[in-house]
Amino acid sequence: MSVGPQLFEDIDGVRAYVRKCQAAGESVGIVPTMGALHEGHLSLVRASTAATTRTVVTIFVNPTQFSPDEDLASYPRTLEADLNALSGLAVDAVFHPGPEEMYPDGDALIHVVPSVLDKNLCGLVRPGHFRGVCTVVAKLFNIIPADQAFFGRKDAQQAAILKRMANDLNFPIRINICPIVREADGLAMSSRNKYLNSDERMQAVALSRALAKGKQVIADGEQSSASVIKVMRDCLAEFVLVQPEYVSIVDFDTFVDAETIGPSCLAALAAQVGPARLIDNMQVNGVTGECEM
Amino acid sequence: MSVGPQLFEDIDGVRAYVRKCQAAGESVGIVPTMGALHEGHLSLVRASTAATTRTVVTIFVNPTQFSPDEDLASYPRTLEADLNALSGLAVDAVFHPGPEEMYPDGDALIHVVPSVLDKNLCGLVRPGHFRGVCTVVAKLFNIIPADQAFFGRKDAQQAAILKRMANDLNFPIRINICPIVREADGLAMSSRNKYLNSDERMQAVALSRALAKGKQVIADGEQSSASVIKVMRDCLAEFVLVQPEYVSIVDFDTFVDAETIGPSCLAALAAQVGPARLIDNMQVNGVTGECEM
Repeated sequence: MSVGPQLFEDIDGVRAYVRKCQAAGESVGIVPTMGALHEGHLSLVRASTAATTRTVVTIFVNPTQFSPDEDLASYPRTLEADLNALSGLAVDAVFHPGPEEMYPDGDALIHVVPSVLDKNLCGLVRPGHFRGVCTVVAKLFNIIPADQAFFGRKDAQQAAILKRMANDLNFPIRINICPIVREADGLAMSSRNKYLNSDERMQAVALSRALAKGKQVIADGEQSSASVIKVMRDCLAEFVLVQPEYVSIVDFDTFVDAETIGPSCLAALAAQVGPARLIDNMQVNGVTGECEM
Repeated sequence: MSVGPQLFEDIDGVRAYVRKCQAAGESVGIVPTMGALHEGHLSLVRASTAATTRTVVTIFVNPTQFSPDEDLASYPRTLEADLNALSGLAVDAVFHPGPEEMYPDGDALIHVVPSVLDKNLCGLVRPGHFRGVCTVVAKLFNIIPADQAFFGRKDAQQAAILKRMANDLNFPIRINICPIVREADGLAMSSRNKYLNSDERMQAVALSRALAKGKQVIADGEQSSASVIKVMRDCLAEFVLVQPEYVSIVDFDTFVDAETIGPSCLAALAAQVGPARLIDNMQVNGVTGECEM
């Protein structure tokens, strides 16, 4: 019965649509994505449609969060498949601007910058990445003044930074962080999994397996982060196609390295698997198996 | 007939008020100030009440735009006089939060940062100042989702940066830059003029007089910025209580030093006069005597 979401490519159009919805008393959820939608994204969409009366999915491969040596050019752009994937859900609108609509003057000159929370993990190895993320999400929040936003917990550092941004800058929006969705073998879903050939895909299970091993030794009583990290690194080393980038245990509030296992620790890792840089994380000292935000 | 503006000290209260006005079809103007209101501020208020149906004046001495060696502690706080000054105008609400309402966790961790436009003039001599300004104004725009905002042209660099911020981050607000209001002798109105004793007050005319002299030699045909700056510095040097900080001619779009006088040049200067750091600026190559933004 659904006619599918309404597609907007211009800022004025989607903003007018959202304002009209809100003037009619509707609540609006926004799900910011870079497209190449997978089941992880769709879980965010379902969370939004359950919590609000109108859901807007944004699809924009944001150039300013890629460094020059990263995969901006090859990042999958699959608009038709994305719209098909959304057509079965109760999505009301898709905002799919071109770069020139979002950055008419080239990159923004005024940026939103995390001064903390970005000094470790992805923030450390991808300088400028979270500046690009914060800036584009601030722009999206201003373009689409939604009541709630939905982000995935796979990008735990991003989620924490954006939650903090909304708080610190008083964006009138509720930030929801939703659980990681995994493949049957444990691989966290990611648009970049598309880059993997079949051998790489099989070995990509290394990330979630290393996290699970770390969690297990902590459950068995290990208190030293260095020892847990060694267990995780040893696990990754069994996979010849996997090149670890960082393997860390951090405090979940600050994203600073934790020397000993505390009540709010997050294990997080990044690795290159063939052409794909993949990340994953897991709460290692709790009963839920997922971090709370 | 006016009962005076409604006073809000909390974010939720003023936000609900503004949303209620907008839901009723009203347009809202915001005039962000640090209080100690003078005729310059009141001109912004009049511009707002003329252009919108509801005007909110914010009064908040923002600690994060002061460096440790600046005058945060002594900056004049004159709420009662400010409310009296506003009572004769058609101001609907005043937002006067405490620092703990605006920064409940201490300073914000996520900042809005100008990456350009701040490398000269006040941005050069007051590191972090415009980061503090942009961050607090972004917060205010999110707290009070006004349709229009009004800033004074005396703070030309601030005005240009905030206009650029609204543009780059897609704040759905129109930024209006209003003319400098001057005392009879030419001194630009400023809350910091209160710091001046009578001798200092008399000599403070040096700033506007130097700008006028620079404008005159340009009108007489001078094309070299260095020569014009020397004329302005020589003028300032006649006033023994005036210690120049910067004396510059900049391109108005970029705030970069202009070597020769072009069609969009701004002369800007800062000087210490007794306990007061004062600034002023003037369009030096146009017929209006004031810059356009």
